[in-house]
Amino acid sequence: MQKILDAVDAQLETGLERLFAFLRIPSISAQPAHKPDCLAAAAWIRDELTALGFAARLSETSGLPGVIATNHEAGPNTPHVLFYGHYDVQPADPRSLWHSDPFDPQLVDGPRGKKIVARGAVDDKGQVISFLEACRAHIAVSGKLPVRLTMLLEGEEENGSPSLEELLKQEHDTLAAADFVYVADTNMWDAATPAITASLRGLAAMEVRIHGPKRDLHSGFFGGLALNPIQVLVNILGQLKDDTGRITIPGFYDGITPVSPEQEAAWGELGFDTAGFLGGVGLTTPAGEADQIPLAQIWARPTAEINGIYGGYQGEGSKTVIPAHATAKLTFRLVAGQDPAGIQTNFEAFVTSRLPPDAKAAFIPGAAAPGYGLNPQASFLRTAQAALAAEFGKPAALIGCGASIPVVEAFKTHLGLDTLLAGFGLDDDCVHSPNEKFDLACFHRGTRAHARLLAALAAES
Amino acid sequence: MQKILDAVDAQLETGLERLFAFLRIPSISAQPAHKPDCLAAAAWIRDELTALGFAARLSETSGLPGVIATNHEAGPNTPHVLFYGHYDVQPADPRSLWHSDPFDPQLVDGPRGKKIVARGAVDDKGQVISFLEACRAHIAVSGKLPVRLTMLLEGEEENGSPSLEELLKQEHDTLAAADFVYVADTNMWDAATPAITASLRGLAAMEVRIHGPKRDLHSGFFGGLALNPIQVLVNILGQLKDDTGRITIPGFYDGITPVSPEQEAAWGELGFDTAGFLGGVGLTTPAGEADQIPLAQIWARPTAEINGIYGGYQGEGSKTVIPAHATAKLTFRLVAGQDPAGIQTNFEAFVTSRLPPDAKAAFIPGAAAPGYGLNPQASFLRTAQAALAAEFGKPAALIGCGASIPVVEAFKTHLGLDTLLAGFGLDDDCVHSPNEKFDLACFHRGTRAHARLLAALAAES
Repeated sequence: MQKILDAVDAQLETGLERLFAFLRIPSISAQPAHKPDCLAAAAWIRDELTALGFAARLSETSGLPGVIATNHEAGPNTPHVLFYGHYDVQPADPRSLWHSDPFDPQLVDGPRGKKIVARGAVDDKGQVISFLEACRAHIAVSGKLPVRLTMLLEGEEENGSPSLEELLKQEHDTLAAADFVYVADTNMWDAATPAITASLRGLAAMEVRIHGPKRDLHSGFFGGLALNPIQVLVNILGQLKDDTGRITIPGFYDGITPVSPEQEAAWGELGFDTAGFLGGVGLTTPAGEADQIPLAQIWARPTAEINGIYGGYQGEGSKTVIPAHATAKLTFRLVAGQDPAGIQTNFEAFVTSRLPPDAKAAFIPGAAAPGYGLNPQASFLRTAQAALAAEFGKPAALIGCGASIPVVEAFKTHLGLDTLLAGFGLDDDCVHSPNEKFDLACFHRGTRAHARLLAALAAES
Repeated sequence: MQKILDAVDAQLETGLERLFAFLRIPSISAQPAHKPDCLAAAAWIRDELTALGFAARLSETSGLPGVIATNHEAGPNTPHVLFYGHYDVQPADPRSLWHSDPFDPQLVDGPRGKKIVARGAVDDKGQVISFLEACRAHIAVSGKLPVRLTMLLEGEEENGSPSLEELLKQEHDTLAAADFVYVADTNMWDAATPAITASLRGLAAMEVRIHGPKRDLHSGFFGGLALNPIQVLVNILGQLKDDTGRITIPGFYDGITPVSPEQEAAWGELGFDTAGFLGGVGLTTPAGEADQIPLAQIWARPTAEINGIYGGYQGEGSKTVIPAHATAKLTFRLVAGQDPAGIQTNFEAFVTSRLPPDAKAAFIPGAAAPGYGLNPQASFLRTAQAALAAEFGKPAALIGCGASIPVVEAFKTHLGLDTLLAGFGLDDDCVHSPNEKFDLACFHRGTRAHARLLAALAAES
């Protein structure tokens, strides 16, 4: 192993050169004018993989192509890892806020040593190359990889992944043969603490419109006698949570595994800066379930959020109207065990059962995706924890993510595979913002950790 | 009296000719192109009043002039009535829906005999001429009016009365010398039942904006931990009324005289068609205070209406945002005895006392006008009731109006005068709509009732 780590260290400079070449290609998938650049980036990474000994090719879609590469020289009895990344980047606007050309990568001094500055430095070209350099070190030392590896590099991740499903279907047999998916497009807990994201929240969206009178009414002539649908809407949505912040929709919490005291204790040790997190957005006080610690409120517990509301008059001054209808848009963040469609159905019942005479409710169910929880018994999880601990000298934090990561859901749905989420970004990397960066130390130690993980997976099998 | 009523009957045809001449002038105050027509209508009615023996003149304002006319030949010991009307009319759009030219008045058959069809037929030219014909009959028979009369005819009533306050101030001494104001710009209860509008609801408008985080947040990363101002807003507004429909703002009902059992009984006898009234707008069930009869809910009880609400995402589909703020616009319909500014203050306290940590509320108070209740002991009220009962053979209904009539508030504020509201329109007159009409019987019996009222006022003094 030491030889491999030495190889990683030795090739750091040339690895950076390869990354910089990749970063100089402005592969902005959201901007049609950059389609040739996206194709150039796909070809560049395909050629890199080919040079490394992979069988690499483009997989055409109705959008930008995926890059598929396989290296199964490790043999049939080794673990089979599917590594996912993307070769496209976000737009670099506004350019005026960049301190250097976003597509002319720079290595500059930062608060924690050197940092790589460019669009895509960390998201996701830097993370992809960091992994590839680990593969390069294994191949350089051992002549081959220790595990079977399939690479899937998408070209539309920053544009909503419109062709991903198509890609997963047409490459199903190649991809679904893997044991699990490995995604490095995530962050460490902090610069000293690696992290594995073990849960993601799902989503159920619902729009509800309350209908009252058949037309807008004059509040002088009708007010007091006629039903006001805005009042009905606020009356009902005002009952959505009890005084402790618990959501009152019947069956809402069905199927959820409560946060264990051990988990709560482990998260407590992370020293999450609740005051800093909330203070950054002008708040001071956790607003969720009163009996849950802050990290559980955002990682492990479901929510009911009113994302939008409207009805009646919204212009300057006032208008004495009783409107015909009022609308709210809600999303529920869901955790593993909850049934998105059941939540939508139960919300409908929650509203309908509270309607006064003459009020009618119309519903538009939106996206419905279950929450994701990595099986805590998954062998690759224990292996990854050990590999990360070996590199960083401390255990990896097992964290949650309050949002969804659509590709993880897609891998589960279309390939039947769980995903190991372990990347080396940091919260101050300015992802999607001007002056995106990747700490050189993160790039380097990430490569070492990837190398350890590949070795450990082979050793455990 | 009979001679005067005979004179009214005898001059019906020539009175109609005078009304038709007035109606042919398209005095649409809202349309600048019709300003010459408005000035022509003002001159026409001034000349009519002069010919009747009034001292009549135009009172210039920064907008259209008022017409002021006085006839005080009855002598200093007679009652002094200020009659208010307006010489302008609503626009006639859409012309295509009219069955005849809106400014070529027609006398056509209707379900209750002949009807006068034209823009302004009832609102307000027909009501004004109906009153003038009563004056004409008195003068024809007695050589003079039985009371002192001052006429105030406004030219901007259909355009928001922007110069009324100016007019009331510059003519203050002339107008405020009257004992009360008489306005005939209202309706009968039904074709057989005259009505006096004895109360109007006032208004207090308030906008409230709840501020939460200092910027819009991603509901995945912050949801569960961060305050959602839409939720705060609906939580608070959902407490605005209790289960019986009673408004829960402290002190909200202070100063109100409850509807007496006698009043409730009298309104009960009117046979208000609650099912028809609500059914016309797609409703079935009175939604106000459960212990109040329907007419009390719209005439005699205050309301709290949310006229508009907005916050967060309102577009297609969903957006997983926790918005920075959410806003509601409310108006309170007020009845006599309530303090509009106090209601606004109490609403602020109602909201502020319910704010959770981190939520802030900003308020924009809007219009504030008290409710109006005619003093039930006012002598002119009893006189008017008797005069109407004599003409129609049944008592006048003492009704309320759930809306405001701004001129009535202005007379109280600027002249210190109460207003007698007794007109002869009907609910099917299509006021402000195509094919506006005035039943000939209403015009005729209105004139007779006006004539009786003038005589009765003199007799009572």
